[in-house]
Amino acid sequence: MPADTLESLRDAQRAFVAERDWDRFHTPKNLACALSVEAAELLEHFQWLTDAEAGALPPERRDAVALEMADVLLYLVRLADVLDVDLRAAVARKLTLNAAKYPVEKARGSARKYTEL
Amino acid sequence: MPADTLESLRDAQRAFVAERDWDRFHTPKNLACALSVEAAELLEHFQWLTDAEAGALPPERRDAVALEMADVLLYLVRLADVLDVDLRAAVARKLTLNAAKYPVEKARGSARKYTEL
Amino acid sequence: MPADTLESLRDAQRAFVAERDWDRFHTPKNLACALSVEAAELLEHFQWLTDAEAGALPPERRDAVALEMADVLLYLVRLADVLDVDLRAAVARKLTLNAAKYPVEKARGSARKYTEL
Amino acid sequence: MPADTLESLRDAQRAFVAERDWDRFHTPKNLACALSVEAAELLEHFQWLTDAEAGALPPERRDAVALEMADVLLYLVRLADVLDVDLRAAVARKLTLNAAKYPVEKARGSARKYTEL
Repeated sequence: MPADTLESLRDAQRAFVAERDWDRFHTPKNLACALSVEAAELLEHFQWLTDAEAGALPPERRDAVALEMADVLLYLVRLADVLDVDLRAAVARKLTLNAAKYPVEKARGSARKYTEL
Repeated sequence: MPADTLESLRDAQRAFVAERDWDRFHTPKNLACALSVEAAELLEHFQWLTDAEAGALPPERRDAVALEMADVLLYLVRLADVLDVDLRAAVARKLTLNAAKYPVEKARGSARKYTEL
Repeated sequence: MPADTLESLRDAQRAFVAERDWDRFHTPKNLACALSVEAAELLEHFQWLTDAEAGALPPERRDAVALEMADVLLYLVRLADVLDVDLRAAVARKLTLNAAKYPVEKARGSARKYTEL
Repeated sequence: MPADTLESLRDAQRAFVAERDWDRFHTPKNLACALSVEAAELLEHFQWLTDAEAGALPPERRDAVALEMADVLLYLVRLADVLDVDLRAAVARKLTLNAAKYPVEKARGSARKYTEL
Protein backbone atom coordinates (compact mmCIF):
# COMPACT_ATOMS: atom_id res chain seq x y z
CA MET A 1 0.00 0.00 0.00
CA PRO A 2 1.69 3.18 -1.15
CA ALA A 3 -0.33 5.91 0.56
CA ASP A 4 -1.31 6.09 4.20
CA THR A 5 -2.86 2.81 5.31
CA LEU A 6 -6.14 4.42 6.33
CA GLU A 7 -6.58 6.01 2.92
CA SER A 8 -5.55 2.86 1.07
CA LEU A 9 -8.09 0.89 3.04
CA ARG A 10 -10.79 3.43 2.40
CA ASP A 11 -10.17 3.19 -1.33
CA ALA A 12 -9.95 -0.60 -1.31
CA GLN A 13 -13.25 -0.81 0.55
CA ARG A 14 -14.96 1.66 -1.74
CA ALA A 15 -14.07 -0.45 -4.76
CA PHE A 16 -15.03 -3.68 -3.02
CA VAL A 17 -18.42 -2.32 -2.01
CA ALA A 18 -19.16 -0.68 -5.35
CA GLU A 19 -18.41 -3.87 -7.31
CA ARG A 20 -20.86 -5.79 -5.12
CA ASP A 21 -23.53 -3.09 -5.05
CA TRP A 22 -23.44 -3.11 -1.26
CA ASP A 23 -23.78 0.64 -0.75
CA ARG A 24 -27.39 0.36 0.22
CA PHE A 25 -26.46 -1.97 3.12
CA HIS A 26 -23.65 0.29 4.30
CA THR A 27 -25.72 2.81 6.20
CA PRO A 28 -24.00 4.40 9.20
CA LYS A 29 -26.27 2.51 11.57
CA ASN A 30 -25.63 -0.87 9.95
CA LEU A 31 -21.88 -0.26 9.92
CA ALA A 32 -21.93 0.76 13.59
CA CYS A 33 -23.75 -2.52 14.32
CA ALA A 34 -21.23 -4.50 12.27
CA LEU A 35 -18.30 -2.82 14.01
CA SER A 36 -19.72 -3.70 17.41
CA VAL A 37 -20.30 -7.30 16.31
CA GLU A 38 -16.71 -7.64 15.07
CA ALA A 39 -15.34 -6.14 18.29
CA ALA A 40 -17.27 -8.81 20.19
CA GLU A 41 -15.93 -11.57 17.94
CA LEU A 42 -12.48 -10.31 18.85
CA LEU A 43 -13.36 -10.31 22.54
CA GLU A 44 -14.74 -13.85 22.24
CA HIS A 45 -11.20 -15.16 21.75
CA PHE A 46 -10.25 -13.81 25.17
CA GLN A 47 -13.39 -14.35 27.23
CA TRP A 48 -12.31 -17.50 29.11
CA LEU A 49 -8.56 -16.85 29.10
CA THR A 50 -6.45 -15.75 32.02
CA ASP A 51 -4.16 -12.78 31.38
CA ALA A 52 -1.26 -15.22 31.22
CA GLU A 53 -2.97 -17.30 28.53
CA ALA A 54 -4.03 -14.22 26.58
CA GLY A 55 -0.46 -13.00 26.57
CA ALA A 56 0.83 -16.23 25.02
CA LEU A 57 -1.65 -17.14 22.30
CA PRO A 58 -0.81 -20.13 20.10
CA PRO A 59 0.00 -19.04 16.51
CA GLU A 60 -3.31 -20.13 14.91
CA ARG A 61 -5.29 -18.34 17.60
CA ARG A 62 -3.15 -15.23 17.18
CA ASP A 63 -3.78 -15.32 13.43
CA ALA A 64 -7.51 -15.59 14.00
CA VAL A 65 -7.34 -12.66 16.42
CA ALA A 66 -5.43 -10.59 13.84
CA LEU A 67 -8.18 -11.21 11.28
CA GLU A 68 -10.87 -10.08 13.71
CA MET A 69 -8.83 -6.94 14.34
CA ALA A 70 -8.69 -6.41 10.58
CA ASP A 71 -12.48 -6.65 10.43
CA VAL A 72 -12.78 -3.97 13.09
CA LEU A 73 -10.43 -1.69 11.20
CA LEU A 74 -12.18 -2.27 7.88
CA TYR A 75 -15.62 -1.40 9.26
CA LEU A 76 -14.20 1.59 11.12
CA VAL A 77 -12.61 2.97 7.97
CA ARG A 78 -15.77 2.28 6.00
CA LEU A 79 -17.95 4.04 8.58
CA ALA A 80 -15.61 7.03 8.53
CA ASP A 81 -15.95 7.17 4.76
CA VAL A 82 -19.73 6.96 4.81
CA LEU A 83 -19.99 9.62 7.54
CA ASP A 84 -17.27 11.73 5.92
CA VAL A 85 -15.30 11.70 9.17
CA ASP A 86 -11.56 12.39 9.02
CA LEU A 87 -10.24 9.61 11.26
CA ARG A 88 -6.76 11.05 11.43
CA ALA A 89 -8.04 14.41 12.61
CA ALA A 90 -10.36 12.70 15.08
CA VAL A 91 -7.59 10.69 16.73
CA ALA A 92 -5.35 13.75 16.90
CA ARG A 93 -8.17 15.61 18.64
CA LYS A 94 -8.79 12.67 20.95
CA LEU A 95 -5.12 12.35 21.92
CA THR A 96 -5.12 16.01 22.95
CA LEU A 97 -8.31 15.53 24.96
CA ASN A 98 -6.92 12.42 26.67
CA ALA A 99 -3.75 14.25 27.65
CA ALA A 100 -5.88 16.93 29.33
CA LYS A 101 -8.23 14.43 30.99
CA TYR A 102 -5.42 12.26 32.30
CA PRO A 103 -2.57 14.53 33.46
CA VAL A 104 0.52 12.46 34.13
CA GLU A 105 0.87 13.34 37.80
CA LYS A 106 -2.76 12.42 38.60
CA ALA A 107 -3.19 9.40 36.37
CA ARG A 108 0.07 7.62 37.03
CA GLY A 109 -0.52 4.03 37.99
CA SER A 110 -4.29 4.43 38.30
CA ALA A 111 -7.01 2.81 36.17
CA ARG A 112 -9.63 5.27 37.39
CA LYS A 113 -11.84 7.08 34.93
CA TYR A 114 -10.98 10.75 34.53
CA THR A 115 -14.23 11.70 36.27
CA GLU A 116 -12.92 9.97 39.41
CA LEU A 117 -9.34 11.29 39.42
CA MET B 1 1.94 12.87 11.67
CA PRO B 2 4.88 12.12 9.42
CA ALA B 3 4.85 8.32 9.12
CA ASP B 4 1.90 6.09 8.41
CA THR B 5 -1.01 6.97 10.70
CA LEU B 6 -1.13 3.52 12.27
CA GLU B 7 2.53 3.69 13.23
CA SER B 8 2.29 7.25 14.48
CA LEU B 9 -0.64 6.28 16.65
CA ARG B 10 1.18 3.26 17.99
CA ASP B 11 4.10 5.42 19.02
CA ALA B 12 1.92 8.14 20.50
CA GLN B 13 0.05 5.55 22.55
CA ARG B 14 3.23 3.88 23.74
CA ALA B 15 4.52 7.16 25.09
CA PHE B 16 1.16 8.06 26.66
CA VAL B 17 0.91 4.71 28.42
CA ALA B 18 4.53 4.65 29.57
CA GLU B 19 4.31 8.13 31.10
CA ARG B 20 1.26 7.06 33.11
CA ASP B 21 2.58 3.62 34.06
CA TRP B 22 -0.51 2.02 32.55
CA ASP B 23 1.23 -0.97 30.97
CA ARG B 24 0.03 -3.31 33.65
CA PHE B 25 -3.61 -2.43 32.81
CA HIS B 26 -3.08 -2.86 29.09
CA THR B 27 -3.29 -6.63 28.93
CA PRO B 28 -4.70 -8.05 25.68
CA LYS B 29 -7.88 -9.11 27.45
CA ASN B 30 -8.46 -5.71 29.05
CA LEU B 31 -7.82 -3.96 25.75
CA ALA B 32 -10.23 -6.29 23.94
CA CYS B 33 -12.85 -5.41 26.57
CA ALA B 34 -12.16 -1.69 26.19
CA LEU B 35 -12.40 -1.91 22.41
CA SER B 36 -15.77 -3.63 22.66
CA VAL B 37 -17.00 -1.01 25.12
CA GLU B 38 -15.94 1.84 22.83
CA ALA B 39 -17.59 0.19 19.83
CA ALA B 40 -20.81 0.06 21.86
CA GLU B 41 -20.49 3.73 22.83
CA LEU B 42 -20.28 4.46 19.13
CA LEU B 43 -23.34 2.33 18.44
CA GLU B 44 -25.24 4.09 21.23
CA HIS B 45 -25.36 7.24 19.11
CA PHE B 46 -27.31 5.37 16.44
CA GLN B 47 -29.49 3.02 18.43
CA TRP B 48 -32.77 4.96 18.23
CA LEU B 49 -32.14 6.71 14.91
CA THR B 50 -33.71 5.87 11.59
CA ASP B 51 -31.32 5.44 8.68
CA ALA B 52 -32.39 8.87 7.46
CA GLU B 53 -31.54 10.50 10.79
CA ALA B 54 -28.24 8.61 11.05
CA GLY B 55 -27.29 9.87 7.61
CA ALA B 56 -27.81 13.50 8.58
CA LEU B 57 -26.30 13.90 12.03
CA PRO B 58 -26.20 17.39 13.51
CA PRO B 59 -22.59 18.69 13.73
CA GLU B 60 -22.13 18.22 17.51
CA ARG B 61 -23.42 14.68 17.29
CA ARG B 62 -21.13 13.96 14.36
CA ASP B 63 -18.18 15.32 16.34
CA ALA B 64 -19.04 13.09 19.27
CA VAL B 65 -19.31 10.12 16.92
CA ALA B 66 -15.89 10.94 15.45
CA LEU B 67 -14.35 10.90 18.93
CA GLU B 68 -15.85 7.50 19.68
CA MET B 69 -14.41 6.25 16.41
CA ALA B 70 -11.04 7.63 17.49
CA ASP B 71 -11.31 5.65 20.74
CA VAL B 72 -11.94 2.47 18.79
CA LEU B 73 -8.92 3.11 16.60
CA LEU B 74 -6.69 3.95 19.54
CA TYR B 75 -7.53 0.75 21.41
CA LEU B 76 -7.21 -1.30 18.24
CA VAL B 77 -3.75 0.06 17.53
CA ARG B 78 -2.76 -0.42 21.14
CA LEU B 79 -3.99 -4.02 21.18
CA ALA B 80 -2.05 -4.71 17.97
CA ASP B 81 1.07 -3.32 19.62
CA VAL B 82 0.65 -5.40 22.77
CA LEU B 83 -0.03 -8.59 20.77
CA ASP B 84 2.68 -7.74 18.25
CA VAL B 85 0.15 -8.00 15.42
CA ASP B 86 0.91 -6.26 12.14
CA LEU B 87 -2.42 -4.57 11.44
CA ARG B 88 -1.47 -3.62 7.90
CA ALA B 89 -0.58 -7.19 7.01
CA ALA B 90 -3.74 -8.45 8.71
CA VAL B 91 -6.06 -6.19 6.71
CA ALA B 92 -4.26 -7.06 3.49
CA ARG B 93 -4.80 -10.73 4.27
CA LYS B 94 -8.43 -10.09 5.21
CA LEU B 95 -9.15 -8.18 2.00
CA THR B 96 -7.87 -11.14 0.00
CA LEU B 97 -9.99 -13.55 2.02
CA ASN B 98 -13.08 -11.36 1.61
CA ALA B 99 -12.61 -11.20 -2.15
CA ALA B 100 -12.56 -15.01 -2.24
CA LYS B 101 -15.51 -15.40 0.14
CA TYR B 102 -17.65 -12.86 -1.68
CA PRO B 103 -17.08 -13.27 -5.43
CA VAL B 104 -18.62 -10.36 -7.30
CA GLU B 105 -21.07 -12.39 -9.36
CA LYS B 106 -22.49 -14.20 -6.33
CA ALA B 107 -22.44 -11.41 -3.79
CA ARG B 108 -23.80 -8.58 -5.89
CA GLY B 109 -26.71 -6.89 -4.20
CA SER B 110 -26.95 -9.48 -1.45
CA ALA B 111 -26.37 -9.02 2.29
CA ARG B 112 -26.11 -12.77 2.86
CA LYS B 113 -23.20 -14.18 4.80
CA TYR B 114 -20.70 -16.04 2.63
CA THR B 115 -21.77 -19.33 4.20
CA GLU B 116 -25.23 -18.78 2.70
CA LEU B 117 -24.24 -17.59 -0.76
CA MET C 1 -40.22 -24.90 35.81
CA PRO C 2 -42.17 -24.69 39.03
CA ALA C 3 -40.59 -21.69 40.79
CA ASP C 4 -39.90 -18.29 39.31
CA THR C 5 -38.06 -18.65 36.00
CA LEU C 6 -35.07 -16.61 37.17
CA GLU C 7 -34.59 -18.85 40.19
CA SER C 8 -35.10 -22.04 38.22
CA LEU C 9 -32.49 -20.90 35.73
CA ARG C 10 -30.07 -19.98 38.47
CA ASP C 11 -30.39 -23.46 39.96
CA ALA C 12 -30.14 -25.20 36.58
CA GLN C 13 -26.99 -23.25 35.78
CA ARG C 14 -25.43 -23.93 39.14
CA ALA C 15 -25.84 -27.68 38.63
CA PHE C 16 -24.60 -27.51 35.03
CA VAL C 17 -21.48 -25.59 36.01
CA ALA C 18 -20.71 -27.70 39.07
CA GLU C 19 -20.93 -30.97 37.11
CA ARG C 20 -18.42 -29.62 34.59
CA ASP C 21 -16.12 -28.00 37.12
CA TRP C 22 -16.48 -24.68 35.35
CA ASP C 23 -16.64 -22.47 38.43
CA ARG C 24 -13.11 -21.29 37.99
CA PHE C 25 -13.95 -19.92 34.51
CA HIS C 26 -17.11 -18.19 35.75
CA THR C 27 -15.49 -15.13 37.23
CA PRO C 28 -17.60 -11.95 37.11
CA LYS C 29 -15.31 -10.45 34.49
CA ASN C 30 -15.40 -13.51 32.23
CA LEU C 31 -19.18 -13.70 32.51
CA ALA C 32 -19.53 -10.00 31.70
CA CYS C 33 -17.40 -10.63 28.59
CA ALA C 34 -19.50 -13.65 27.62
CA LEU C 35 -22.72 -11.70 28.08
CA SER C 36 -21.45 -8.94 25.82
CA VAL C 37 -20.38 -11.47 23.20
CA GLU C 38 -23.79 -13.15 23.23
CA ALA C 39 -25.57 -9.80 22.94
CA ALA C 40 -23.47 -9.11 19.85
CA GLU C 41 -24.31 -12.52 18.37
CA LEU C 42 -27.94 -11.55 18.79
CA LEU C 43 -27.34 -8.19 17.14
CA GLU C 44 -25.53 -9.92 14.25
CA HIS C 45 -28.84 -11.35 13.07
CA PHE C 46 -30.20 -7.84 12.59
CA GLN C 47 -27.17 -5.90 11.38
CA TRP C 48 -27.99 -5.82 7.67
CA LEU C 49 -31.79 -5.97 7.95
CA THR C 50 -34.22 -3.16 7.43
CA ASP C 51 -36.78 -2.63 10.17
CA ALA C 52 -39.35 -4.24 7.90
CA GLU C 53 -37.23 -7.37 7.43
CA ALA C 54 -36.38 -7.54 11.13
CA GLY C 55 -40.07 -7.40 11.96
CA ALA C 56 -40.86 -10.40 9.73
CA LEU C 57 -38.09 -12.92 10.40
CA PRO C 58 -38.41 -16.32 8.70
CA PRO C 59 -39.08 -19.09 11.29
CA GLU C 60 -35.56 -20.60 11.32
CA ARG C 61 -34.02 -17.18 11.79
CA ARG C 62 -36.47 -16.40 14.56
CA ASP C 63 -35.56 -19.67 16.27
CA ALA C 64 -31.87 -18.84 16.05
CA VAL C 65 -32.57 -15.38 17.49
CA ALA C 66 -34.52 -16.93 20.37
CA LEU C 67 -31.55 -19.16 21.22
CA GLU C 68 -29.20 -16.16 21.28
CA MET C 69 -31.62 -14.42 23.60
CA ALA C 70 -31.56 -17.52 25.80
CA ASP C 71 -27.76 -17.30 25.95
CA VAL C 72 -27.98 -13.69 27.09
CA LEU C 73 -30.44 -14.61 29.82
CA LEU C 74 -28.40 -17.59 30.97
CA TYR C 75 -25.22 -15.56 31.36
CA LEU C 76 -27.10 -12.73 33.02
CA VAL C 77 -28.62 -15.06 35.59
CA ARG C 78 -25.27 -16.74 36.13
CA LEU C 79 -23.50 -13.41 36.64
CA ALA C 80 -26.18 -12.35 39.12
CA ASP C 81 -25.60 -15.58 41.03
CA VAL C 82 -21.83 -15.18 41.09
CA LEU C 83 -22.08 -11.54 42.19
CA ASP C 84 -24.91 -12.32 44.62
CA VAL C 85 -27.09 -9.71 42.92
CA ASP C 86 -30.86 -9.96 43.32
CA LEU C 87 -31.99 -9.42 39.72
CA ARG C 88 -35.63 -9.03 40.67
CA ALA C 89 -34.86 -6.30 43.18
CA ALA C 90 -32.52 -4.62 40.68
CA VAL C 91 -35.15 -4.42 37.94
CA ALA C 92 -37.75 -3.16 40.40
CA ARG C 93 -35.30 -0.43 41.44
CA LYS C 94 -34.50 0.35 37.81
CA LEU C 95 -38.16 0.61 36.80
CA THR C 96 -38.67 3.18 39.54
CA LEU C 97 -35.61 5.12 38.42
CA ASN C 98 -36.74 5.04 34.79
CA ALA C 99 -40.18 6.36 35.70
CA ALA C 100 -38.49 9.31 37.42
CA LYS C 101 -36.00 9.92 34.62
CA TYR C 102 -38.61 9.75 31.89
CA PRO C 103 -41.77 11.46 33.14
CA VAL C 104 -44.66 10.74 30.76
CA GLU C 105 -45.35 14.33 29.82
CA LYS C 106 -41.71 15.04 28.91
CA ALA C 107 -40.75 11.76 27.31
CA ARG C 108 -43.82 11.14 25.19
CA GLY C 109 -42.87 10.41 21.60
CA SER C 110 -39.21 11.31 22.12
CA ALA C 111 -36.17 9.03 21.88
CA ARG C 112 -33.97 11.55 23.68
CA LYS C 113 -31.85 10.46 26.57
CA TYR C 114 -33.11 11.69 29.95
CA THR C 115 -30.13 14.04 30.19
CA GLU C 116 -31.43 15.87 27.13
CA LEU C 117 -35.11 16.04 28.01
CA MET D 1 -44.45 -9.05 41.55
CA PRO D 2 -47.09 -11.74 41.79
CA ALA D 3 -46.61 -13.70 38.54
CA ASP D 4 -43.38 -14.99 37.08
CA THR D 5 -40.78 -12.22 37.00
CA LEU D 6 -40.35 -12.40 33.23
CA GLU D 7 -44.08 -11.92 32.67
CA SER D 8 -44.34 -9.16 35.24
CA LEU D 9 -41.49 -7.33 33.58
CA ARG D 10 -43.02 -7.77 30.17
CA ASP D 11 -46.27 -6.23 31.38
CA ALA D 12 -44.51 -3.41 33.23
CA GLN D 13 -42.50 -2.56 30.14
CA ARG D 14 -45.54 -2.66 27.88
CA ALA D 15 -47.31 -0.12 30.06
CA PHE D 16 -44.22 2.07 30.36
CA VAL D 17 -43.69 2.13 26.60
CA ALA D 18 -47.35 2.67 25.74
CA GLU D 19 -47.66 5.65 28.11
CA ARG D 20 -44.66 7.30 26.45
CA ASP D 21 -45.62 6.42 22.89
CA TRP D 22 -42.27 4.70 22.39
CA ASP D 23 -43.52 1.73 20.38
CA ARG D 24 -42.21 3.18 17.16
CA PHE D 25 -38.66 3.29 18.56
CA HIS D 26 -38.89 -0.25 19.89
CA THR D 27 -38.21 -2.09 16.66
CA PRO D 28 -36.40 -5.44 17.03
CA LYS D 29 -33.25 -3.97 15.50
CA ASN D 30 -33.20 -0.94 17.79
CA LEU D 31 -33.80 -3.11 20.83
CA ALA D 32 -31.00 -5.49 19.80
CA CYS D 33 -28.71 -2.46 19.54
CA ALA D 34 -29.81 -1.18 22.94
CA LEU D 35 -29.28 -4.59 24.52
CA SER D 36 -25.75 -4.75 23.15
CA VAL D 37 -25.03 -1.24 24.39
CA GLU D 38 -26.26 -2.07 27.89
CA ALA D 39 -24.20 -5.29 27.96
CA ALA D 40 -21.14 -3.18 27.16
CA GLU D 41 -21.98 -0.66 29.90
CA LEU D 42 -22.01 -3.62 32.25
CA LEU D 43 -18.68 -4.84 30.91
CA GLU D 44 -17.20 -1.35 31.30
CA HIS D 45 -17.32 -1.76 35.08
CA PHE D 46 -14.97 -4.75 34.82
CA GLN D 47 -12.66 -3.78 31.97
CA TRP D 48 -9.64 -2.69 34.03
CA LEU D 49 -10.22 -4.89 37.07
CA THR D 50 -8.33 -8.01 37.99
CA ASP D 51 -10.43 -11.06 38.80
CA ALA D 52 -9.69 -10.46 42.47
CA GLU D 53 -10.97 -6.87 42.29
CA ALA D 54 -14.03 -7.90 40.27
CA GLY D 55 -14.87 -10.49 42.90
CA ALA D 56 -14.86 -7.91 45.70
CA LEU D 57 -16.67 -4.87 44.32
CA PRO D 58 -17.30 -1.98 46.71
CA PRO D 59 -21.04 -1.62 47.49
CA GLU D 60 -21.71 1.44 45.29
CA ARG D 61 -19.99 -0.21 42.36
CA ARG D 62 -21.96 -3.39 42.92
CA ASP D 63 -25.19 -1.37 42.99
CA ALA D 64 -24.29 0.29 39.70
CA VAL D 65 -23.49 -3.10 38.19
CA ALA D 66 -26.86 -4.45 39.36
CA LEU D 67 -28.63 -1.57 37.60
CA GLU D 68 -26.79 -2.29 34.35
CA MET D 69 -27.83 -5.91 34.67
CA ALA D 70 -31.41 -4.74 35.13
CA ASP D 71 -31.15 -2.74 31.91
CA VAL D 72 -29.99 -5.84 30.04
CA LEU D 73 -32.91 -7.84 31.41
CA LEU D 74 -35.43 -5.13 30.62
CA TYR D 75 -34.35 -4.84 26.98
CA LEU D 76 -34.19 -8.60 26.64
CA VAL D 77 -37.73 -9.02 27.92
CA ARG D 78 -38.92 -6.17 25.73
CA LEU D 79 -37.27 -7.65 22.63
CA ALA D 80 -38.86 -11.02 23.38
CA ASP D 81 -42.24 -9.31 23.60
CA VAL D 82 -41.81 -7.43 20.34
CA LEU D 83 -40.59 -10.56 18.51
CA ASP D 84 -43.22 -12.72 20.23
CA VAL D 85 -40.47 -15.03 21.51
CA ASP D 86 -41.21 -17.22 24.53
CA LEU D 87 -38.05 -16.66 26.59
CA ARG D 88 -38.84 -19.45 29.01
CA ALA D 89 -39.24 -21.99 26.21
CA ALA D 90 -36.09 -20.68 24.53
CA VAL D 91 -33.92 -21.12 27.62
CA ALA D 92 -35.35 -24.60 28.24
CA ARG D 93 -34.45 -25.51 24.66
CA LYS D 94 -30.99 -23.96 25.05
CA LEU D 95 -30.27 -25.82 28.29
CA THR D 96 -31.05 -29.10 26.51
CA LEU D 97 -28.80 -28.16 23.61
CA ASN D 98 -25.97 -27.15 25.96
CA ALA D 99 -26.18 -30.45 27.81
CA ALA D 100 -25.76 -32.27 24.48
CA LYS D 101 -22.96 -29.98 23.27
CA TYR D 102 -21.03 -30.19 26.52
CA PRO D 103 -21.25 -33.75 27.84
CA VAL D 104 -19.95 -33.89 31.40
CA GLU D 105 -17.13 -36.34 30.74
CA LYS D 106 -15.74 -34.32 27.83
CA ALA D 107 -16.28 -30.80 29.12
CA ARG D 108 -15.13 -31.22 32.68
CA GLY D 109 -12.57 -28.61 33.61
CA SER D 110 -12.23 -27.32 30.05
CA ALA D 111 -13.13 -23.89 28.67
CA ARG D 112 -12.98 -25.13 25.08
CA LYS D 113 -15.82 -24.43 22.72
CA TYR D 114 -17.93 -27.49 21.91
CA THR D 115 -16.57 -27.48 18.37
CA GLU D 116 -13.11 -28.12 19.80
CA LEU D 117 -13.98 -30.76 22.37
